[in-house]
Amino acid sequence: MQSIAKYKEQIADYLNSIQLDGQPIELYEPISYILSLGGKQIRPVLTLMAADVFNEDPKKAIYAATAIELFHNFSLMHDDIMDDASLRRGHQTVHEKWDINTAILSGDAMLILAYQYFEHYEPVIFRDLAKLFSKTAIQVCEGQQYDICFEGRSDVQIEQYIKMIEYKTAVLVAAALKMGAIVAKTTAENGDQIYNFGLNLGIAFQLLDDHLDAFGDEATFGKRIGGDILENKKTFLYLKALEQANPAQKEELLHFYATVDCADEEKKITRVKQLFIETGSQQASSKLIEQYTEEALKILDILAIEEDKKELLRVFSKELMNRQM
Amino acid sequence: MQSIAKYKEQIADYLNSIQLDGQPIELYEPISYILSLGGKQIRPVLTLMAADVFNEDPKKAIYAATAIELFHNFSLMHDDIMDDASLRRGHQTVHEKWDINTAILSGDAMLILAYQYFEHYEPVIFRDLAKLFSKTAIQVCEGQQYDICFEGRSDVQIEQYIKMIEYKTAVLVAAALKMGAIVAKTTAENGDQIYNFGLNLGIAFQLLDDHLDAFGDEATFGKRIGGDILENKKTFLYLKALEQANPAQKEELLHFYATVDCADEEKKITRVKQLFIETGSQQASSKLIEQYTEEALKILDILAIEEDKKELLRVFSKELMNRQM
Repeated sequence: MQSIAKYKEQIADYLNSIQLDGQPIELYEPISYILSLGGKQIRPVLTLMAADVFNEDPKKAIYAATAIELFHNFSLMHDDIMDDASLRRGHQTVHEKWDINTAILSGDAMLILAYQYFEHYEPVIFRDLAKLFSKTAIQVCEGQQYDICFEGRSDVQIEQYIKMIEYKTAVLVAAALKMGAIVAKTTAENGDQIYNFGLNLGIAFQLLDDHLDAFGDEATFGKRIGGDILENKKTFLYLKALEQANPAQKEELLHFYATVDCADEEKKITRVKQLFIETGSQQASSKLIEQYTEEALKILDILAIEEDKKELLRVFSKELMNRQM
Repeated sequence: MQSIAKYKEQIADYLNSIQLDGQPIELYEPISYILSLGGKQIRPVLTLMAADVFNEDPKKAIYAATAIELFHNFSLMHDDIMDDASLRRGHQTVHEKWDINTAILSGDAMLILAYQYFEHYEPVIFRDLAKLFSKTAIQVCEGQQYDICFEGRSDVQIEQYIKMIEYKTAVLVAAALKMGAIVAKTTAENGDQIYNFGLNLGIAFQLLDDHLDAFGDEATFGKRIGGDILENKKTFLYLKALEQANPAQKEELLHFYATVDCADEEKKITRVKQLFIETGSQQASSKLIEQYTEEALKILDILAIEEDKKELLRVFSKELMNRQM
């Protein structure tokens, strides 16, 4: 079995070897560009790892891993337009560097290219991969639409928020793992269990991301702390704080979240974080992250694989979840 | 064998039966909306017809036909954003009725839904359909990008223009036919020939569309005559006129096409059309349309199918090409 670093290397090598020099270059250049920005490549690593865990040469899963990474970057390219984001991984977003039309069309092409990577497999595997991929991709679109809808709503429930992050983030983590299982031709039960492991881990991962956006360390988190607060994002921290706030805290929180282009940004961030702590929301968030992580790890216990393989998945989970809380 | 009207009815019935009431409705409503606008549904008719021609029950091809129609509408939804078009089939475009983000995301979902329709077929057919679909879809994106690039270029060659319409329009017509052949499990040779028939017919179809945009009858063409001229579109008519113009005609044509927001639109349309006629471009356009149509019909002659089936394809071709010239 390989190390996580080795999977990363395999993915980097393969992605570097892909020739995206098709014509017209105006279509392909933005695709090379967004892929060159790197990122953690968690999802393709999961695909290789799952193949390995189910006793298949991880190299065989490289095409499915590439499809997942292309899809992820397609969704970033289109989401960045929708969110009007100017930076991605510290560089200009595609619609900023080129324009919106380019980001739409190159994104479309990436989604199609992702499907083409499944053509490397025999028909039954191809069908199973493409089927899972389509189901997942539709859910990611639904999740993105929920995210957009929630911005304009004041009645978002916590369970709706969890469903949104499940669709927008977790299903792709789950599918990345299940694709490795499909390539490895393991049992349907193993495929379902590794999917559920990924689903819980994915939800925990996104909750942690939201948590660190408020309570993380700027240097290691890589983004400005408090970004979600300034954007009035209705994360778990906010929704739980509202739920547990006393009338005065609730009024204050609602007031802060009704303000766009806040005059004193640092004051808003500091006070909202205090409210998250005072209402017990910060603690509830930490607990929920732990619960979803535990739920994921529990699935590993019952998975029919060797102990050293469970350990690999545990190490990866811990690495992923062991960011500063 | 069925009549063309019968295919149309089958497609309309099936499209009406599709439940697009998924959640969130903000994602699915624009998809129902664009499909409800109708259109000629030439492409799905071709898929059913091709299945019938190769001795398969056309009903079996309904899912492939639906995928083609979903893809076509996906590309219209995204193209309308890029072209900043406010009307589609006489109704508001999706990004006008909702907004750009909605049109991006609902378009993405339609592309994925299209792939899902192939899941109705067994693995080998599924793989063959999805493979042809992906190849075609990428070409359509490339064609759209060429179209965008050509807007800003003054050195577009006629053969580049033909390649652009081949990619943007004709490959989908060709693929629609070949998908019917794939569902019918006919020989690879038959599949290739019906594809080439569609490719030639598709190019003829688009050239005719451009021709009628200048020389058609407003009532039957369904769009304002001269739209391409006002938009300074570098169609075959324009490129050929430039090529065959004398210096004075060339200067006049270039002058007209350097003008945006023309003060006297009718004057521009009338004079440019005169130039198309005077330079012989109109005639060359008619001749080229005829050549591509003939090329398509010639393929039918050698196709290994019964005479009545060839006749059906001929009738369809003539109906398609027998708009006012």
